[in-house]
Amino acid sequence: MTTRTFQAPKGTRDFYPEDMAVRRRIESAWRNASVLHGFEEIEGPSFEHLDLYTVKSGESIVSELFSFRRAGGTDDYALRPEFTPTLARMVAAKGGSLQRPVKWFAIPSHFRAERPQRGRLREFVQWNVDMLGLDEPSADAEVLATGLSAIDALGLRPDVATVRVSHRDAVGRALAALGVHEDSMPAAFQLLDRRDKLPPEVFGERASALGLDADGLAAFDRLARTRRPLSADLQELASETGVPVEAFAPMADLRDALEDAGIADWCEWDLGIVRGLAYYTGTVFEVHETGGTERAIAGGGRYDGLVELMGGPPTSAVGFGMGDVVLGLVLRDRGLLDDVAPPKPAVFVIAAAEEADRPVDRILGALRSAGVHARRSYRSTRNVGKLLSEAGRSGAAHAVIVGRELAEGNVVIKDLQGGTQETIAIDDVVSRFRGEAP
Amino acid sequence: MTTRTFQAPKGTRDFYPEDMAVRRRIESAWRNASVLHGFEEIEGPSFEHLDLYTVKSGESIVSELFSFRRAGGTDDYALRPEFTPTLARMVAAKGGSLQRPVKWFAIPSHFRAERPQRGRLREFVQWNVDMLGLDEPSADAEVLATGLSAIDALGLRPDVATVRVSHRDAVGRALAALGVHEDSMPAAFQLLDRRDKLPPEVFGERASALGLDADGLAAFDRLARTRRPLSADLQELASETGVPVEAFAPMADLRDALEDAGIADWCEWDLGIVRGLAYYTGTVFEVHETGGTERAIAGGGRYDGLVELMGGPPTSAVGFGMGDVVLGLVLRDRGLLDDVAPPKPAVFVIAAAEEADRPVDRILGALRSAGVHARRSYRSTRNVGKLLSEAGRSGAAHAVIVGRELAEGNVVIKDLQGGTQETIAIDDVVSRFRGEAP
Repeated sequence: MTTRTFQAPKGTRDFYPEDMAVRRRIESAWRNASVLHGFEEIEGPSFEHLDLYTVKSGESIVSELFSFRRAGGTDDYALRPEFTPTLARMVAAKGGSLQRPVKWFAIPSHFRAERPQRGRLREFVQWNVDMLGLDEPSADAEVLATGLSAIDALGLRPDVATVRVSHRDAVGRALAALGVHEDSMPAAFQLLDRRDKLPPEVFGERASALGLDADGLAAFDRLARTRRPLSADLQELASETGVPVEAFAPMADLRDALEDAGIADWCEWDLGIVRGLAYYTGTVFEVHETGGTERAIAGGGRYDGLVELMGGPPTSAVGFGMGDVVLGLVLRDRGLLDDVAPPKPAVFVIAAAEEADRPVDRILGALRSAGVHARRSYRSTRNVGKLLSEAGRSGAAHAVIVGRELAEGNVVIKDLQGGTQETIAIDDVVSRFRGEAP
Repeated sequence: MTTRTFQAPKGTRDFYPEDMAVRRRIESAWRNASVLHGFEEIEGPSFEHLDLYTVKSGESIVSELFSFRRAGGTDDYALRPEFTPTLARMVAAKGGSLQRPVKWFAIPSHFRAERPQRGRLREFVQWNVDMLGLDEPSADAEVLATGLSAIDALGLRPDVATVRVSHRDAVGRALAALGVHEDSMPAAFQLLDRRDKLPPEVFGERASALGLDADGLAAFDRLARTRRPLSADLQELASETGVPVEAFAPMADLRDALEDAGIADWCEWDLGIVRGLAYYTGTVFEVHETGGTERAIAGGGRYDGLVELMGGPPTSAVGFGMGDVVLGLVLRDRGLLDDVAPPKPAVFVIAAAEEADRPVDRILGALRSAGVHARRSYRSTRNVGKLLSEAGRSGAAHAVIVGRELAEGNVVIKDLQGGTQETIAIDDVVSRFRGEAP
């Protein structure tokens, strides 16, 4: 057989232990925040029938998918590009039998056949938090609070991470008041969504094509581009844009809910936030690094029509997704992952005499059976100095030295930080360390 | 848009919260056992270049894979059917720079395009534990002890789970001594592997074709079909089969190591164990439900040539895989998953007065920020009896009742098991519950 070298597919990652420790840190923060907020974990298949994705997003999504067919099979599948269709399918499958509200989270792998670039890979992990069956701003706020709880636990604060919030109902009503016709509404939202990607003159041209007069155009531009504190006076916003204040009523309710959930500090209004996807219906938001240039850390909103589209009962829904790639970049840039490392042993057992090998293996087995993370050297040396160095490098708090004291049934315990040592009976080693966290 | 119903692809699973709790129970046992034994977690891509799998297993594996190509792309990929090729690739990529022995584990999803049946799905989770760079029976024993540690933690004991152990070197030497020619050795191992699947007369015919005389044939049959305790006298085995006892020397060393690791109770010899895959080189083992009819719970062994095949330095290696499907069936059949449920809240906060909604949201937020798993009702009722019932159904240990005591800045804490209650200041709620495990 020939020998050759292999590489991971472009846009995918090999997680060596240090990388995996980072991934677990992030996933633990996600899982912990979810559980504290009363969400329950679910998972689905890594691939679904292709049409689960096309029915939601149209045929145009196919070019962004890894799709395939089993050799000799007839069904088309696609690797999961997002979790929401699976979630909606799972809710629809249970019909009305699930207790409402449904509060679920998931932390699966996702796949996109896009060109890999900074912050965007072909395989990534994404946290999904969704609440279904409660059509109230308090649900929007609870979902968002769950996301911020994890971000906070990872070390980001409101001065470095901002939630940009909008409400598509309010914006839609405002656009209608400015003169955007019902038929042009999708184009208007698409334009809002691309406001930062289009040159100003192109943006202006397209806005004119929406049927706005000069005042409407100016107001549209102001709505699209002005970020405001969450506490902004909505009456002022109304005067400034010439839109009746009633249009912004959903924003007032949402603000109250965000304040009650204790997350107002993180939030600002950005009525240019659309979240591209056609299915968002009310609140939409994105979490960004304040002043950062990365893509969004998280994004989500309300998508009340999706479960019904998947064959389920009409079901209100709000949720978000937060990927590990951009979040990891932001945390790393700020030094918040510097202390992350694989678990360290509590005890390192050293064979300091010829006859110590089998007692060492027995002590190791007993410690591990008692739930103590224990290691040994795999070198043949009996040099205690060298072995203690290795014990120190492992990060162990204590060494158990099995040497000539074995003759009296004893071993030496050495505190690897303090340097103190004591002699104890070999039979007491397990009780000495039981309860040390792994 | 039309509404239709969707189903998960055949052979895949939807994990609702109760299912996910089971999966997490199993994964936690796996992860915990790995860490206690000094293994570090890794992960790789969910799909690899197709030829990573064909170079190891030949073109015949392609029909068992989900393979695909990106639209417009030129590379062939396959969903991961097993983790070992990725592991070998990752070790090979680091060349000699990894500290030996490498002790790694992984808990990824795997994919097989086979016909789904009991114990075999198209997507499953598999725990992989591998130790590379230490060519000693103690490494085989440490890897196996790690697997048994998880099985033990999940509630299986040596009377219900058995490790069937063989050693391909010893069996190879014995077969040579019986008269199997070098060229017929692969056929002999293939026959051993299929001993339980072939009718006895077909087995006999094929064994004759290996060039064995009548005595050799009888000895081959005895080697293939007799299970023996780990403590079996190897001299007796030699006499019984007419094979020189030196052939079985690797088994003696392996037995010593299994005894030192404290796992001899779980093990028996079954020299018919081959583990099909061509790349196993020494120790091989399978974990089975004692007297059970399921497929193997786990299987593994030594595969010293694989890292070199993937372009790395010659590297001894031993490892196993344990999937979640058969293990889950065995645990469920024995009632060992009956107590598994999603995490329950520590505290359930109840709004017992009209003006209590916003204080309830604030208490919830403060509890969750302090790391306490807290929930509330989403119903509009203020009926404390109904709300206490809901709190009880949630599994919460305590309810915080926000009612008319709010006027004095107080709330009532009710112990939902004991039924006792106390009145405390609203500002003391967080300190009262801080430290309750989520």
